[in-house]
Amino acid sequence: MEKIYGMKHGIKGFLRGDNVVLNEILDTEEKVELLKRTPASFLGSCRYKLPEISDDSEIYMQIFSRLQSMDVKYFLYVGGNDSMDTIKKLSDYAKLVNSDICFMGVPKTIDNDLALTDHSPGFGSCAKYIATAVRELVCDCRVYDVEAVTILEIMGRNAGWLTASAALARSEDCEGADLIYLPETVFDIDDFLKKVKDLAAKKHSVVVAISEGIKVADGRFVCELGDENAAVDAFGHKMMSGSGKYLENRIKQELKGIKCRSIELSTLQRCASHFASLTDINEAFLVGSEAVKAALNGETGKVVILKRESDSPYRCTTENMDVHGIANVEKTVPLKWITDGYVTEEAVNYIRPLIQGELTQFIENGVPKLIRL
Amino acid sequence: MEKIYGMKHGIKGFLRGDNVVLNEILDTEEKVELLKRTPASFLGSCRYKLPEISDDSEIYMQIFSRLQSMDVKYFLYVGGNDSMDTIKKLSDYAKLVNSDICFMGVPKTIDNDLALTDHSPGFGSCAKYIATAVRELVCDCRVYDVEAVTILEIMGRNAGWLTASAALARSEDCEGADLIYLPETVFDIDDFLKKVKDLAAKKHSVVVAISEGIKVADGRFVCELGDENAAVDAFGHKMMSGSGKYLENRIKQELKGIKCRSIELSTLQRCASHFASLTDINEAFLVGSEAVKAALNGETGKVVILKRESDSPYRCTTENMDVHGIANVEKTVPLKWITDGYVTEEAVNYIRPLIQGELTQFIENGVPKLIRL
Repeated sequence: MEKIYGMKHGIKGFLRGDNVVLNEILDTEEKVELLKRTPASFLGSCRYKLPEISDDSEIYMQIFSRLQSMDVKYFLYVGGNDSMDTIKKLSDYAKLVNSDICFMGVPKTIDNDLALTDHSPGFGSCAKYIATAVRELVCDCRVYDVEAVTILEIMGRNAGWLTASAALARSEDCEGADLIYLPETVFDIDDFLKKVKDLAAKKHSVVVAISEGIKVADGRFVCELGDENAAVDAFGHKMMSGSGKYLENRIKQELKGIKCRSIELSTLQRCASHFASLTDINEAFLVGSEAVKAALNGETGKVVILKRESDSPYRCTTENMDVHGIANVEKTVPLKWITDGYVTEEAVNYIRPLIQGELTQFIENGVPKLIRL
Repeated sequence: MEKIYGMKHGIKGFLRGDNVVLNEILDTEEKVELLKRTPASFLGSCRYKLPEISDDSEIYMQIFSRLQSMDVKYFLYVGGNDSMDTIKKLSDYAKLVNSDICFMGVPKTIDNDLALTDHSPGFGSCAKYIATAVRELVCDCRVYDVEAVTILEIMGRNAGWLTASAALARSEDCEGADLIYLPETVFDIDDFLKKVKDLAAKKHSVVVAISEGIKVADGRFVCELGDENAAVDAFGHKMMSGSGKYLENRIKQELKGIKCRSIELSTLQRCASHFASLTDINEAFLVGSEAVKAALNGETGKVVILKRESDSPYRCTTENMDVHGIANVEKTVPLKWITDGYVTEEAVNYIRPLIQGELTQFIENGVPKLIRL
């Protein structure tokens, strides 16, 4: 029987020989269905960046020698910008050494910051949870009859897609967030405080959604204003938290008499599979299976992207594109979709189709059943 | 037609004449069904404590004069300890002045800290979300192959019911939280750090659930160790946050090389109506309708409590009990249900039936529909 290996913790686990045989593990349809309902990465993930081929080819020799010894013909890698960088480098190296192994990228990131593709699997489910949670929080916030500001801090370092999803909370039955701030535009703290003050004079509960990565005019992150010593991860990204907390403190200091609370949606927002978007899960399977087809057809150095054919009715097809166009490019929210403290109807219309539909959960003992490796 | 008034923001709104007519607002079955699916308090809430009758009878005269002018015969108040205190005082005053208005208490608190009743409506839905979120977070936390500790801070000042619900995350397909700490027992920080260190040596991801209100041996809250200036609300409760953050910092300082993140489930845990417990919602309606029946029968100064007849199959009935036995008494988790860093099977068996079942959501544009006043 042919084997479909799964690398535990990505290329990092592969280098240690830490692989499983997926077609043995996921040997029933029920298990595949559970996988659709299990959050996070079933196989694990890594924060490991391959060196440039010209800097260190040793590691590439190791990888390809291991691939050959395992008789691997097709190599699919699922992930965001960093994973696409891995596919780009491995397919480049394959060309260099005349290897016929096919390398295909499969997009997946809640951040939705991949170029070329209309959107990335993972984003729709996260956006659905955020829109739902914001609606619920708006109800919760208006319970007391006192002037109160609630700041919701949503993931997104440089791309505000997830925070923009907060706009989907607004409808006839819920006013949604009053203000929305993305990292794509400069965040003006004085103007923010003024807007909050004006709103608090009109309605007793003010709800604000901000990206964790909002920045002031000099380029510093708002969260850095409180603490200059933010740590850095393996990819050189600043590890942040606290923009909401910083603004909460400013409001408490400068807008006396107004209560303020900040809430980090934290990792809860990215693993709420109990309320995943069916559209999103279906598209995740679509891009995966298209990548398999492409690899079997001998394609390599490509990524399967989603191409939106129509908004209403929503229709998306796929296309295979050169991975060089996607690796290390960060797609942010178009500036024309961002207004002074909110987002436009275009942003809402773009995101709305991606949060449609739900999966029936397999409930056991009152909680959704999961699958674990 | 008879009128069913709703007091906006409780007795505080009532004193201002801020009332609505509920049987006009909720005039279709669909609206009642939406109400079951809408989080937080539809009518709003307040933090207003009535004075002792002997200290200030003026306010009682105001309330009763308003009740008479509105021709109110029955007064039902839904809430936790503070609301039961209100019912106790109003029914006591009614006796004093020979008023024949009937006063009934209806239990509702996510904290589950009401005496007499087996459990309180609100708790089961919150517990269901916590158990589900802990399972999802455990999946999320194990994604990276590095030693990491995640601290989940769950609501509960003095009663650990909600934090105990984290134990329901554990099952064959999920190891759940590794450690659980409730505020009922003394929290020993050194012992905690040792346990975390030992666990981190055995498994790469360690997940800990703590109550916001855990206290050290001298009685101080853990969150106060970092900040001595915690604010106090209208009921004299300390307004807290930060036990998780404090422990995160201690782990980072003292267990070098182990990553640590703390996550506050914050108000997200109490308003996740998109995944409410059907058992809970049904029981909320049950105690409410029983209170109406009791009042119509002339009962007063009582509260409807839930009485568990059997765990398996789960069966609960109601009973009307003297509100004096419930007001201002805080029911905490029995010490015999708490182990050194976890809870017993009895605690799990007590909570498990309360999280069973889900409501079909009314989805509109990808998010659950709500009702607003």
